[in-house]
Amino acid sequence: MVKNQFNSKYVACLMFSILLNLLLITNIYVGCKWTSLLSWSSTAAAEAEAVAAIGCSGHGRAYLDGLLGDENEPVCECNTCYTGPDCSQFISHCTADANSGDPLFLEPFWMQHPTSSALVVSGWHRMSYDYDDNTQISRRLESLIRKLHAFVGNAVTRNRYIVFGAGSTQIINAATYALSPENTSSLSPTRVLASVPYYSLYKVQPEYFNSERFKFEGDAYTWKNRSDAGPSTNVIEFVTSPNNPDGQLNKAIVGGPNVKTIYDRAYYWPHFTPIPAPADGDLMVFTLSKLTGHAGSRFGWAVVKDESVFNRMIRHMQINSMGVSRDTQLRAFKLLKAIQEEGTGIFDFAYRTMKTRWERLSATLSLSNRFSLQRFNPQYCSFYNEIRGFSPAYAWVKCEREEDKDCYAVLKAANIIGRPGNVFGSEDRYVRLSLVRNQDDFDILIHRLQKLVSEPRLFEG
Amino acid sequence: MVKNQFNSKYVACLMFSILLNLLLITNIYVGCKWTSLLSWSSTAAAEAEAVAAIGCSGHGRAYLDGLLGDENEPVCECNTCYTGPDCSQFISHCTADANSGDPLFLEPFWMQHPTSSALVVSGWHRMSYDYDDNTQISRRLESLIRKLHAFVGNAVTRNRYIVFGAGSTQIINAATYALSPENTSSLSPTRVLASVPYYSLYKVQPEYFNSERFKFEGDAYTWKNRSDAGPSTNVIEFVTSPNNPDGQLNKAIVGGPNVKTIYDRAYYWPHFTPIPAPADGDLMVFTLSKLTGHAGSRFGWAVVKDESVFNRMIRHMQINSMGVSRDTQLRAFKLLKAIQEEGTGIFDFAYRTMKTRWERLSATLSLSNRFSLQRFNPQYCSFYNEIRGFSPAYAWVKCEREEDKDCYAVLKAANIIGRPGNVFGSEDRYVRLSLVRNQDDFDILIHRLQKLVSEPRLFEG
Repeated sequence: MVKNQFNSKYVACLMFSILLNLLLITNIYVGCKWTSLLSWSSTAAAEAEAVAAIGCSGHGRAYLDGLLGDENEPVCECNTCYTGPDCSQFISHCTADANSGDPLFLEPFWMQHPTSSALVVSGWHRMSYDYDDNTQISRRLESLIRKLHAFVGNAVTRNRYIVFGAGSTQIINAATYALSPENTSSLSPTRVLASVPYYSLYKVQPEYFNSERFKFEGDAYTWKNRSDAGPSTNVIEFVTSPNNPDGQLNKAIVGGPNVKTIYDRAYYWPHFTPIPAPADGDLMVFTLSKLTGHAGSRFGWAVVKDESVFNRMIRHMQINSMGVSRDTQLRAFKLLKAIQEEGTGIFDFAYRTMKTRWERLSATLSLSNRFSLQRFNPQYCSFYNEIRGFSPAYAWVKCEREEDKDCYAVLKAANIIGRPGNVFGSEDRYVRLSLVRNQDDFDILIHRLQKLVSEPRLFEG
Repeated sequence: MVKNQFNSKYVACLMFSILLNLLLITNIYVGCKWTSLLSWSSTAAAEAEAVAAIGCSGHGRAYLDGLLGDENEPVCECNTCYTGPDCSQFISHCTADANSGDPLFLEPFWMQHPTSSALVVSGWHRMSYDYDDNTQISRRLESLIRKLHAFVGNAVTRNRYIVFGAGSTQIINAATYALSPENTSSLSPTRVLASVPYYSLYKVQPEYFNSERFKFEGDAYTWKNRSDAGPSTNVIEFVTSPNNPDGQLNKAIVGGPNVKTIYDRAYYWPHFTPIPAPADGDLMVFTLSKLTGHAGSRFGWAVVKDESVFNRMIRHMQINSMGVSRDTQLRAFKLLKAIQEEGTGIFDFAYRTMKTRWERLSATLSLSNRFSLQRFNPQYCSFYNEIRGFSPAYAWVKCEREEDKDCYAVLKAANIIGRPGNVFGSEDRYVRLSLVRNQDDFDILIHRLQKLVSEPRLFEG
C-alpha cells in the first residue's frame, strides 16, 4: 500500500511536470514567437517602447530625439499650458494658443493604434536617389493614395498623375511654377489670385520667390470686376475647398481660356466637411497633415490631369529638393496602410472629435452677441451616405461690436492667440481660431472664451 | 525487482522532465528578454527583419515599401546589370552606369552595423509642425552635427548657426536667396558665379526659379577678367571644395566687398580628400548623402556665420517646405549616432573603399594613352595625422586623342554612361565618371574600361 501510494505520488508529480513542460513549450512558441526572429531590431524597438511608455501625465510626450534629462532619459515635452518634469502642473495664467493649424487632435487615434502604425527602418533602407523605376516616387505609396481616394470618394484619380511634395507647401509652389509659362520675355507675368479670405501662403510664396514668371495679384473677385483684366492675361486662381480659414466649399470665381485653377483640397476629408462628390479638378492638392495629423512629416501630393503639367511639377521637385525624402514616403506609406486596415476608423474618430469641438465652441459663443461664427448648411455626404453638418478645422470669428475693430486684440486681451483677419486678406474684425490642435489647447481656448463672453460689457449697466 | 526497475524509470523521467522545465524557464527568462518588454513594435520589427533577410544574391535588395510579388512578398530590386527573381542572373551586355553620384558604396557599412543604425518609430512620433522650442530644427541632431565636425576637424562650428534643408539641393537655393538683396527695384540682380568645371545645379536652379533677385552668370574666371565687372555689382560665388567633378580643393576666385561666397563642402570628408584644416567659410554647405551614403533621405545642412543670413535661410525653408521632415531628421539623428558609436569606423571604411577604387581605375586607364585622369598632390590630413593621397568621388576623364572631341560618345560606344563635360560648363573632351556607386556598378565600369583601353586603335598597325 505504502509503495503504491509512493508510486501514485510519483506519477502525479511526473504528470504535473510534463504538463508544465508542455505549457512552457507553448509559451515559448506563442509568447516568444518573435524572439527567435528578432535580432538587429530588438534594441531599437526596446528603446522606442521605453520612450513611448513615458506618460507625461497625458499633457505632453517624450520622443526618441527629444532632449535628455540628468539621467540621460528623454524629458517630457509639455503641452502649452502644462509644465513640470511630468507635465502635471497646470500654468493657470497661460495663453490659449489657437494660432497655427497644428493637427494634434489626431494624436490620440495613433496612440490607440500603436501596432499597425509602428515602423522599423533598417540602416540601409533606400539609400539611393531613385526608386527601382528611376523615379523619386514610391509606387506602393502612390497606389495606396489612389485606393484611399476611391474609398473616401473625395477625388477622381483614374487616368490622373500623382506627384509628391514636402507638404502641400512645396506642392503649391511646384504647381504655381508648372502653370506659369516659362518664356516670360514677351508676356506679362501670370497673375496669381485667391478669393478673400485666403490662406496666406498663396501670397507669401510668389512674393518671396519673386519670379519673373508670376505675380500675386490679390482677391479674385476684385480682379474679375476690373475693367483692364483682359482675357489674354494668364491667370492662376487658387480655390481652397473647404476654405482655410472659413471652411466653405468654395468654387472658382474667374474663368476663361487663360485661367488655370489650383484646387487646394487639404481639408476635403470627412473630418471637416460632408463630401458631396469626388473632386474632379485639373490640379488638386492634398496633404498628410490634415488627413492623418502628421504635419511634421511634411508630405503632400497633387492629383494632376495634364501630363505636361505633371512633368513640370516633377522637374520642380527635382530641382528644388530631388523629390521627397524616402524616409517620409516610407512613414506615409505605413500610416496610410494603418488607416486602410482600420476601415472608417480614422474618419469616425476625426469627425466625432471635430464635431464635438465645433458644438462646444458654438454653444460657448452663442452665450453673447459679441462674436459670431461662420454658418453652414448641412449637405449630403457620400462617404457616410447621409445629410451632415460641417465640423470645420477653424472658426472664422467676427467681432460684432462696433468698437471691436481689431478682433485679434480683443481676444489677445482675453489671453487668446488667434490669427488676425489681415493675414487672410480680410478685415481685422475677423480672427481665425484653430480647432485642430491638441485637446489641452482646445479646452483652454473654450475656458478663456467662456470667461470672455460672460464678462459684463464695459460702460454698460 | 520489476517494481524497482519501474520506479527508477519513473524517477529518471521525472528528473528529465524537471530539468527540461528548468531549461525552458531559463530560456524564457534569457532568450525572451525582449518579449516581456516589446509589445506594439514587435510585429513591425519582425516584418522589417524578414524583408532584410531577403538576400537577392548580393546583387540587389528588398524593401519594406518595395513592390510585391505573387505571394505578397517584397520582390528583389536588382542592381543595374543583374536580373531574375533573386538578382542572380548577370546581364552580360548591359550598360555600365557611371552617371549619377548615387553613394551606394557606403551601403555595406550599414549592413555591417544593423543594430546601431536600426530605427523604430511610433505612429505618433513628432506629429507637430514644430519641436518643443518652436523651431523646425532638432536640437539633438544639431548638437550631433557639431560634435561630428569637431571629431573630424573639417569645419568650424563654434559661434556659428546651423540650418537644415532637404539635401544640399534645397540648402543651396536657400543660400542663394538669403545672400541676394531683397529689394531689387534699384539694383541689378546679383550675379551667381562658379568656376568651370562646376556642379550643374548652381546654373540650373537660378535659371529655373527665374527670380528678379539673381541671375546665373557662368564662369568665375571669365567674370573676373571682364572689364565691365565693376566692384559695385553684387556677386555670389560658389566654391566647391573638393570640387565636383574634379575633386580639387578649390579656393575662391572673385573677391571684393560685394562678393558673398557659398562653400559647397559636400565632399569634404576623409572618404574623398585629406583634411588639411577645418573649413572656416562664412557659409558652408554639407550633405548626409556624401557622408553616410543616404542620398534618398534628402538631408543637408549649412553652417552659417552671420545671424541675419541664417534667419533668411530659415525663412526660406519655412516658405518652401516648412522645414525638413521630422522623419528625415530622426533618421539622420539615428545614423549620426551610429557613426559616433563606431569612432573612425565609417571614415576608415569609406576611405579604404574609395582608395581601392581610385587605384583600380588609375591602373586601368594607365594601360593606354587614350584617356587621362585629374592629378592630385598628396597633402597632410589632420584627421589621420599623416600625408595622404586623394580618393575622389568622381573621375574627371579627358579623351586625349585629337579625334575624340566628344568623350561622352567615345565611352557610350563602349557601353559606358558618364556625364558629359558640357554639363559642368566644360569641353566635351571631358567626361565625369562616378566612383561612388555600388560595387557592381564599379566592377562593370572597370571591366568595360579594360576592354576599351586594350582595343587596338582603328587605322593603326
